[in-house]
Amino acid sequence: MPNAFRFAVLDTDSAARIGELQTPHGVVQTPAFMPVGTQGSVKAMRHRDLEDAGAQILLGNTYHLYLRPGDALIARRGGLHRFIGWPHPILTDSGGYQVFSLAERRKIDERGAEFRSHLDGSVHMLSPETAVDIQARLGSDIAMVLDECLAYPASRDETVASMQRSVRWAARCRLRFDSIRDGAGTEVGATNSGQAQFGIVQGGVYQDLRDQSAAETMAIGFEGYAIGGLSVGEPLDLMYSVVSETARRLPEHQPRYLMGAGTPRDLVECVARGIDMFDCVLPTRNARNGQLFTSRGRINIKNARYAEDESPLDPSCGCYTCRTHSAYLRHLYLAGEMTAGVLNTLHNLTFYLDTMRRIREAISLRTFDKFRQEFLRSASRLSPDS
Amino acid sequence: MPNAFRFAVLDTDSAARIGELQTPHGVVQTPAFMPVGTQGSVKAMRHRDLEDAGAQILLGNTYHLYLRPGDALIARRGGLHRFIGWPHPILTDSGGYQVFSLAERRKIDERGAEFRSHLDGSVHMLSPETAVDIQARLGSDIAMVLDECLAYPASRDETVASMQRSVRWAARCRLRFDSIRDGAGTEVGATNSGQAQFGIVQGGVYQDLRDQSAAETMAIGFEGYAIGGLSVGEPLDLMYSVVSETARRLPEHQPRYLMGAGTPRDLVECVARGIDMFDCVLPTRNARNGQLFTSRGRINIKNARYAEDESPLDPSCGCYTCRTHSAYLRHLYLAGEMTAGVLNTLHNLTFYLDTMRRIREAISLRTFDKFRQEFLRSASRLSPDS
Repeated sequence: MPNAFRFAVLDTDSAARIGELQTPHGVVQTPAFMPVGTQGSVKAMRHRDLEDAGAQILLGNTYHLYLRPGDALIARRGGLHRFIGWPHPILTDSGGYQVFSLAERRKIDERGAEFRSHLDGSVHMLSPETAVDIQARLGSDIAMVLDECLAYPASRDETVASMQRSVRWAARCRLRFDSIRDGAGTEVGATNSGQAQFGIVQGGVYQDLRDQSAAETMAIGFEGYAIGGLSVGEPLDLMYSVVSETARRLPEHQPRYLMGAGTPRDLVECVARGIDMFDCVLPTRNARNGQLFTSRGRINIKNARYAEDESPLDPSCGCYTCRTHSAYLRHLYLAGEMTAGVLNTLHNLTFYLDTMRRIREAISLRTFDKFRQEFLRSASRLSPDS
Repeated sequence: MPNAFRFAVLDTDSAARIGELQTPHGVVQTPAFMPVGTQGSVKAMRHRDLEDAGAQILLGNTYHLYLRPGDALIARRGGLHRFIGWPHPILTDSGGYQVFSLAERRKIDERGAEFRSHLDGSVHMLSPETAVDIQARLGSDIAMVLDECLAYPASRDETVASMQRSVRWAARCRLRFDSIRDGAGTEVGATNSGQAQFGIVQGGVYQDLRDQSAAETMAIGFEGYAIGGLSVGEPLDLMYSVVSETARRLPEHQPRYLMGAGTPRDLVECVARGIDMFDCVLPTRNARNGQLFTSRGRINIKNARYAEDESPLDPSCGCYTCRTHSAYLRHLYLAGEMTAGVLNTLHNLTFYLDTMRRIREAISLRTFDKFRQEFLRSASRLSPDS
């Protein structure tokens, strides 16, 4: 079990690559998109809907699950997979991002982050060590280190200080992770002896700081590496350039995960720059707000042109929503029906996961660049009219 | 097509009966429960979820669909079945109940009900004739006459006056329905030439008024008969007695529909009294509020005892929810996840539709009374602890 985690690059096309991520709960084909199951549930979806859409791995939020229902309860139930009934791979974040964005009255120092729960105001401490322990109890297949999340823009000095703290925290996270793997697991209540841990490269938009963060994080040594702190408001070309330059410094034979991105275009552009894994709330959140991603661009279902449209939302899509409905979708959305959220989410996730499938296919056929050009001309447009 | 509607009683066990309702969109086995698709959607469900749960017929609300997206738009799209993508039978109510309960500043006189939309305050008139026309455009398989809905309690005088108006309105509804069937359909924009129309027996809890209403409504002549104005707050034994006495006066070879009922107990008790069709928001609404109907009684998923429960919600249930999850359901509900509504609704509808299936089986085996006794001891309890 401790060696259950493996990653192999199977094929490349320029910087783009396809791979296989072996975890204690099965294989993930990369490049992969991970639907976000914030509180242990991808909003409006049942697990079988996710399986139908082609999801191979989910992301769970440590902050939310720690507060409710609690990592101790989940551990008693045998871990997150068993508790939520999802037998496939799960990645958990460290909880840091939510502490920085959601929690009230947070106080951050070298020890970690003290915060008040957004649910009941109770006081909690998230340290590098507790972030590891909580994730050990959740038993995800991939755990993330606790890092400091910086808002954009941030000065160079702020970024240096924050990046250096993140590196120190990463070292503490790895130390704790190793001690759990080497025997402290029982005492902590770990539920997945094959759990892997990913480090996170920070450094904002300063490439030399990114390089330094990458080198120091790699020196600690993790099963995989994420690029954090992007897609937070910086210009797109800056983000792509940081991804590009950072990804090429990461170990060739280990997985690379771009956190919190992105749009369909981001997926394609960042696969082109060597990224293997993505997560983003965009397909699920936008679905609930009536914005749909299609092979012809983004659609706003509120638009009057869809009131009597008889054609499927996306003629290229094989999802249940596109196979079954057209004008009905606008009605459901305007009427505030929950089923709108269900049907729209199913479509958007299918589109994202299909896109990953097509990306993998194009890489294996060495036609990725052609696919990318074509994709940028169609599916990544902001509107089919534009 | 005009003769596509047929009903046959296939077997009886005392007053309980099984039958087959033939409609232009397929067969419904009775006794049947109709999930309520208020705005053309059973909340949180996709149509294939309803099919999986065993739904053979849906109920749509004329008031809601008339206001949004509008019966004219639905007719242009070929009728309600095509618009919502449900190829199976649909029954529509007349819109009267919602005008009485939802609309603002309604004014009722002999012509009909003038009201303001609860959506935008616009003024509309629902008359017996427009209620028929709207349903003709929606193209449901079964249309209901417009009746006056009386609150409970109501005096005998009020009830007499209201019942007599309902009979006069029923006659106007049938006249309009016949003229559409005999040629005015094209002009009206009717979308289902095989539509049937049911009359509604009123009369409150006064059995002699019920008898009079039944006789006069039957004299007009409809394809089926509903009992309206019950399950509005009257004592249970009074409701059961009115159902019993009214049902036996209705034509033996035509379908009998008890409107707006009810609890699992109501289903069983009213089948025992000769009812063939039911509709109620209880399974769907209560699911969203965390109340689940099971073979052992009602469960409130908020209850702390379900926090770490490893057994299925209902061990006798084969639905996806019961097969896949247990303690997770309480977490989803408390966390306010949409998926809670999806999973709970799926279970409650499966329970209701399974109950109807078991009722039909028991009648065909002539063991209905035994089934009923057993059911009252278990599934119809208010709590598994009581």
